[in-house]
Amino acid sequence: MTITVVGSVAFDTVETPSGRRERCLAGAATYFSLAASFFTQVRVIAVVGEDFSPAEEAVFNARGIDIRGIERAAGKTFFWQGSYLENLNEAKTLQTDLNVFAGFEPKVPDAYRDSEFLFLANIDPVLQRRVREATPQAKLVAGDTMNYWIKDHKPALLEVLKGLDILLINDTETRMIAGNNNLVQAARAVMDLGPRMLVVKHGEYGATLFHKALPGAKESRTFKTPAFPLEQVTDPTGAGDSFAGGFFGYLASQPELTPGTFRRAMFYGSVMGSFTVERFGTDRLQALTREEIDHRFNLFRELTHLD
Amino acid sequence: MTITVVGSVAFDTVETPSGRRERCLAGAATYFSLAASFFTQVRVIAVVGEDFSPAEEAVFNARGIDIRGIERAAGKTFFWQGSYLENLNEAKTLQTDLNVFAGFEPKVPDAYRDSEFLFLANIDPVLQRRVREATPQAKLVAGDTMNYWIKDHKPALLEVLKGLDILLINDTETRMIAGNNNLVQAARAVMDLGPRMLVVKHGEYGATLFHKALPGAKESRTFKTPAFPLEQVTDPTGAGDSFAGGFFGYLASQPELTPGTFRRAMFYGSVMGSFTVERFGTDRLQALTREEIDHRFNLFRELTHLD
Repeated sequence: MTITVVGSVAFDTVETPSGRRERCLAGAATYFSLAASFFTQVRVIAVVGEDFSPAEEAVFNARGIDIRGIERAAGKTFFWQGSYLENLNEAKTLQTDLNVFAGFEPKVPDAYRDSEFLFLANIDPVLQRRVREATPQAKLVAGDTMNYWIKDHKPALLEVLKGLDILLINDTETRMIAGNNNLVQAARAVMDLGPRMLVVKHGEYGATLFHKALPGAKESRTFKTPAFPLEQVTDPTGAGDSFAGGFFGYLASQPELTPGTFRRAMFYGSVMGSFTVERFGTDRLQALTREEIDHRFNLFRELTHLD
Repeated sequence: MTITVVGSVAFDTVETPSGRRERCLAGAATYFSLAASFFTQVRVIAVVGEDFSPAEEAVFNARGIDIRGIERAAGKTFFWQGSYLENLNEAKTLQTDLNVFAGFEPKVPDAYRDSEFLFLANIDPVLQRRVREATPQAKLVAGDTMNYWIKDHKPALLEVLKGLDILLINDTETRMIAGNNNLVQAARAVMDLGPRMLVVKHGEYGATLFHKALPGAKESRTFKTPAFPLEQVTDPTGAGDSFAGGFFGYLASQPELTPGTFRRAMFYGSVMGSFTVERFGTDRLQALTREEIDHRFNLFRELTHLD
């Protein structure tokens, strides 16, 4: 199955304890699509500016990603600058220039209309909803959001949640949406708003999959995965989006969505997130091979399984 | 194999979002020994005051715990008061009265001298070292410590680390001892100070076992376990000590210490910690059965294993 993803393509400047990188190719849709491309065909809907060059296009092309839905607009590409010098687990935003993203009106190309998997990366929920409505053929819809939309755009976000099968967010966002500090209770409250599954990402501590009911399962069950332990975290940017790409990409590649498929998808999500943070920006994803992914998947199984 | 544990037996007054409990039986050695008692024979070395009554003795006796090493001194038992109202993950200490603990001089009863497993719970490293030296027969020695000793008593603590096989501490303590924020690097630095294994407890996010080399394993390996997801955390006090009790108690109950034994011990540790926090103080451990433990162990396997 193919995946259509809508979200940001951006240039990031980041500072981390490992160094500084200027204007590297980034954005949620970029990390997501590169990660998912190891599992299935991915199609991107985004907007970029005149500074988006053939070098950036080549990154997507090298992974066979369909970028016919990346619109070019007059002006500059979305730019973000952040620092992890104080806290490697949470970026301090130093600058955000929406640029061409300010007027983004996502359009779904006709060629994308048969995508059965849809991922709504973290953008304005009004746009997420519009893309959801323009892709009625999508059979499995997942999405992300962030504190800003939860805090100041909750009505629009609640509309998006109604149309989601799977929501992928972090601990804080889960607690914020639910207004409840107990994660298990908060997860149930979030699923009551629409999504039948919730993936809560715990950063360096892994992720938890909550669900109301899985095909084939008699009762609601939970699945937990720790994070792959890394000796060197160079740049945490994009870990969550890469997790989502590995998770959703693996699901889209499978003939059947069984409880076991979702469990393996959680592992592939963790694996893809762990690769991304090893180098700046998308460097590690660009250099990655499927063999390395499967090798780490097996290592990860070893370090989490009893037998 | 029997375990000897030295540490605090205390009365705690705690406030949590679930309510308030006055002067409940607590202390690291109490939680540890109750948790470990489901797996093996446990012997306690501690000091209590005149307010330690037959009711408290009965809690240990009901679990078959040997308390001949609990000395009675003139005065009051160690008292701690804390609040989790602001943060369920970290207690705010409101009062600490060392009482009889201030003059504690641990003595190892002759009847304990054949214990092959020794656990040095979180107390003054000078006392930990003294007990270690008085138990030369101990074949596997594990211990805990806390930020206070790391910060202000490091030379004494370093002496203790040299004599430990396994150190069990949390993320912050690991980073503090090593002076390194990357947990994998910090873990290696801590093991360079003595212990050949390090269990890092991540609170609500589980725990990681690091080790230099395991009997039967060809290379150093890591094992990660998430925490059991709980809908209701009533009182987090004692979770780490109960983890240690489940972990070390299970190890002591096994005929052989293989890599698989350590992995299962990590699971039993998580399971025991998860029970403890369900009710105030030691209430849940007092009411627990081995059947409940094994049932949760199996549930925990299901929610972390791919197949």
